[in-house]
Amino acid sequence: MFVLSSPSGAGKTTLSRMLLKADRNIALSVSVTTRPKRRGEVNGRDYHFIDPGRFTAMVKSGELLEWAEVFDHRYGTPRRPVEQALGAGRDVLFDIDWQGTQQLREKARDDLVSVFILPPTVNELERRLHSRAQDPHDIILGRMAQAAGEMSHWPEYDYVIVNSDKARAFAEIRAILAAERLKRERQIGLSDFVRGLQEKL
Amino acid sequence: MFVLSSPSGAGKTTLSRMLLKADRNIALSVSVTTRPKRRGEVNGRDYHFIDPGRFTAMVKSGELLEWAEVFDHRYGTPRRPVEQALGAGRDVLFDIDWQGTQQLREKARDDLVSVFILPPTVNELERRLHSRAQDPHDIILGRMAQAAGEMSHWPEYDYVIVNSDKARAFAEIRAILAAERLKRERQIGLSDFVRGLQEKL
Repeated sequence: MFVLSSPSGAGKTTLSRMLLKADRNIALSVSVTTRPKRRGEVNGRDYHFIDPGRFTAMVKSGELLEWAEVFDHRYGTPRRPVEQALGAGRDVLFDIDWQGTQQLREKARDDLVSVFILPPTVNELERRLHSRAQDPHDIILGRMAQAAGEMSHWPEYDYVIVNSDKARAFAEIRAILAAERLKRERQIGLSDFVRGLQEKL
Repeated sequence: MFVLSSPSGAGKTTLSRMLLKADRNIALSVSVTTRPKRRGEVNGRDYHFIDPGRFTAMVKSGELLEWAEVFDHRYGTPRRPVEQALGAGRDVLFDIDWQGTQQLREKARDDLVSVFILPPTVNELERRLHSRAQDPHDIILGRMAQAAGEMSHWPEYDYVIVNSDKARAFAEIRAILAAERLKRERQIGLSDFVRGLQEKL
């Protein structure tokens, strides 16, 4: 379970898409949300857009691994697709905030790797938020203020990346994923492999 | 502190040299040893070749961070150069065996990252040992037998790499190093950086 979190505008969604394109062994967990669809977003790809009643029903029936409320809208992670992907031996990418990460961390303990992405400067953060032209100005101001709060959560993450250059940040994300896959405890079958070598020596 | 260990012939020394050449932020810890110099080895680069009396004196005066005996010869890590490099903010690479790693691990706890390199097959291990033409045949047979024992220690390491392709194994080592440097607790100054961003928001 591989989590990418960041304040809005730090580039997390772009980096997630690059990763999904480059690495066939990782599947995206598509969140459900009650917020309206933005221009350019696709239902089922960016989010599953559902109404508040359906969201409440999913919470009650235990269909969500985690959920959180941000800016008066709710966001959650459907459990089934995650369990299916993990069961099939794939890694799962979560593009979620610090609240969701806290809940996932409690459930997944050892098997969760979390990365926090920071913007290099405040100007860059503002520029990225403005380039999403669909948000009204007061929403952008709200996001800027919120970003300051979200940033406080970097100490809860395993890794921190400062996204001053997209290509570099992407290479760093891939290095983290590659390294985590090389961790001894994640390499299933290594005992048998070493025993096989030893028997021939 | 970055440790590469492996049974003889798994390619660790070649990979260490590639890493030192590619990454200027890491310095090699050159071990002292009482074993005779092999053809092609350079005193001060591959090892500091010293006599048994000097080795014993270094152990007694606490000049060694760790030491171990292998094939009737002693190997040790001089303390001073390691402390100087770490103090200057550099990483230090250790090309040492599992005994040395166990001792270092006790001393360095959180700040040690260890990688175990395995050969892909027994044939490949034998081929690599034979290509070091300077070793007599009975020494090679001894090393093959020893390799089986050394391999048992892979579960003590943080990461395991199977060296079936040198370029790939090298890329994996670099990914591990890059990822470890991105770990939250290793990024000194991040608190100040985030506070700086927050003050401007």
